[in-house]
Amino acid sequence: MSMTDERLARAYLVRVAEPPAPALAAFVAEWGPIAAAEAVRKGLCPQRVQGETAARRELNLAEPDLEAGERIGARLIIPEDDEWPAWPLLCLDVARGRGVQSAAVPLALWARGDARLDEAAEAAVAIVGARAASGYGEHVAGEFAYGLAQRELSIFSGAAYGIDGAAHRGALAADGVTVALLGCGLDAGYPAGHVVLLNKIAEQGGLVVSEYPPGTPPARHRFLVRNRLIAALSEGTVVVEAGRRSGARNTATTAGALGKIVMAVPGPISSAMSTGCHDLIRNSAATLVGSVDDVIDIVGKLGTRTTERLRPRRRTDGLGADALRVHEALGRGQGKSAEQVATESGVPVPRVRAVLPALELEGLAERGESGWQQCRAVRKTQESA
Amino acid sequence: MSMTDERLARAYLVRVAEPPAPALAAFVAEWGPIAAAEAVRKGLCPQRVQGETAARRELNLAEPDLEAGERIGARLIIPEDDEWPAWPLLCLDVARGRGVQSAAVPLALWARGDARLDEAAEAAVAIVGARAASGYGEHVAGEFAYGLAQRELSIFSGAAYGIDGAAHRGALAADGVTVALLGCGLDAGYPAGHVVLLNKIAEQGGLVVSEYPPGTPPARHRFLVRNRLIAALSEGTVVVEAGRRSGARNTATTAGALGKIVMAVPGPISSAMSTGCHDLIRNSAATLVGSVDDVIDIVGKLGTRTTERLRPRRRTDGLGADALRVHEALGRGQGKSAEQVATESGVPVPRVRAVLPALELEGLAERGESGWQQCRAVRKTQESA
Repeated sequence: MSMTDERLARAYLVRVAEPPAPALAAFVAEWGPIAAAEAVRKGLCPQRVQGETAARRELNLAEPDLEAGERIGARLIIPEDDEWPAWPLLCLDVARGRGVQSAAVPLALWARGDARLDEAAEAAVAIVGARAASGYGEHVAGEFAYGLAQRELSIFSGAAYGIDGAAHRGALAADGVTVALLGCGLDAGYPAGHVVLLNKIAEQGGLVVSEYPPGTPPARHRFLVRNRLIAALSEGTVVVEAGRRSGARNTATTAGALGKIVMAVPGPISSAMSTGCHDLIRNSAATLVGSVDDVIDIVGKLGTRTTERLRPRRRTDGLGADALRVHEALGRGQGKSAEQVATESGVPVPRVRAVLPALELEGLAERGESGWQQCRAVRKTQESA
Repeated sequence: MSMTDERLARAYLVRVAEPPAPALAAFVAEWGPIAAAEAVRKGLCPQRVQGETAARRELNLAEPDLEAGERIGARLIIPEDDEWPAWPLLCLDVARGRGVQSAAVPLALWARGDARLDEAAEAAVAIVGARAASGYGEHVAGEFAYGLAQRELSIFSGAAYGIDGAAHRGALAADGVTVALLGCGLDAGYPAGHVVLLNKIAEQGGLVVSEYPPGTPPARHRFLVRNRLIAALSEGTVVVEAGRRSGARNTATTAGALGKIVMAVPGPISSAMSTGCHDLIRNSAATLVGSVDDVIDIVGKLGTRTTERLRPRRRTDGLGADALRVHEALGRGQGKSAEQVATESGVPVPRVRAVLPALELEGLAERGESGWQQCRAVRKTQESA
């Protein structure tokens, strides 16, 4: 991992505010990481960004953090890297544009393991559920993860006891790719009983990921903030067991708010651990799934990225409302400035500036001498497809 | 039970065709039972009615049937009786008008037990399910029936082994009203293992009901035909357990076609007996219910008759599309012929003739010297309410 200026800037930025930091995320998207870090450090930034960063802005642990990461075999994945899962994370940006404040894009992600995060997130299902799971729930989580991993889907979860652990183990048993997203630093050794499991995940072709820098202790609010990443990085979320008020239901709600597919597994009505799933199904917040095939059917039907990869001419199918408007406003013949695009699309300038780099990473837009335009290469692919 | 001419005519008619006999039902509604029976006996009736009655029209067992009924403590309930559940059965008429051929109104119903069928059907829930039920399913069926019976709802079911039996027993345990609808004669002693249960139902304030005359053996197609009555006579149907292709799913489908509420209980996905329920829920053919309160919530919300009885000014709320059009077309000041009503409402004459008597039984229409009109008495009730 090279200690480029961008990486140092992002290592500073990812620690300077407690996630989610929507104002900082928008500021960094607009200014770029280096200028943004400099501005934050000097306190020369908009008031809301100052609010998010005031407590920690004088603390620059970028170099020690990157060194600490290296010692535990972790790297800092940044949007400037090929590995950055720009496309899946775009849904956060879109949701925030719709007013979902907690849906801030992460500024960088710490990761440990051999898998590439962007590839793992290309065709992924999240399996989440109660910590105090029943034997039935753990069995179902394991079977689903095993079956889905066999079909080449990555299994994302939160590494908690109960359903999460069973899901990770099921995917490992199928030699599949599984990604654990933590609500603490990668060196926190949490949950204590899953340290061996997390090592296995990192060593056996999976990933352990967190937006929290080394040394960050676990906290309840961090699990909730982390849930948005589980939801965003997968095509759909399967809730296997959930009590009436649970973190898993929070992930399901977040996934729904991000426009992702939400699924829930039913169980005996006598089991309190199935109550949350039954509520989600009854309220039409989740589709009932009773088998791996059910999940494949639903994710396959509604999946955007998978479909899109099969049919390149429809790459824009999965774009959110703002991204689509920005993409449409981009000229084909001549480049445009962000301001011009904003005027034509009706999307505010800062949002346009946030969306354009994501479109570029996806090969849907490119920056030429005369400004931004739709990507030539993709247009060719589209026409030849 | 008096052996009136109507009753003798209906005892003949209910045996002369194998239910459902939609052409005969429409013919009887139009001509009245006495003239219709005479015409059928002589073969002087429309071709489709002849088709339904040809095999048995020369067989007049009306008197022996009524005597056989008396010997087993059974009565023949006919539409001319106060006890006839005209209102709930109207949904069959409406569904047939929409083209659901199997939804023929029964010509009469054999019944054994002290309850009044019309009263039992005023606030009723059907609980149905697999014969090869699991312990879980039987437990849930019993608990639901017990809890709903405690809330003064009658429990309708089909007296089969498994879920049906558990539902009847649960209602009896709560000293509630339960009604068993059979697909054979009341004297068939079927199912053999439930003869004692059926006697208990009849003796402990419930009813055992069938449209099949004494001596009719059970048959698979009769269970399916019977299912329409379970669905029609209750506000909603709860499917507790059902395999992928089962009679209980047939009842659920019928209930849906009749515009009734369909509910299903989830269970472990590993149980084949819950597969049918999960399919119904996933396909939005049924609402998931996990408790007695869930059922009350849903039946209370959508229930028509219960609501309607509380608010007499809205008696027409529960009417089907055709019945509503016929009711609206009836004048308030002067009577109209069926033909006039047909012209004004756009509903065909035979349908108008079938719907008018049902509206009369419900106190929504009356026949004066000048023809049919909206009922004065009800108008008064409506105005004073």
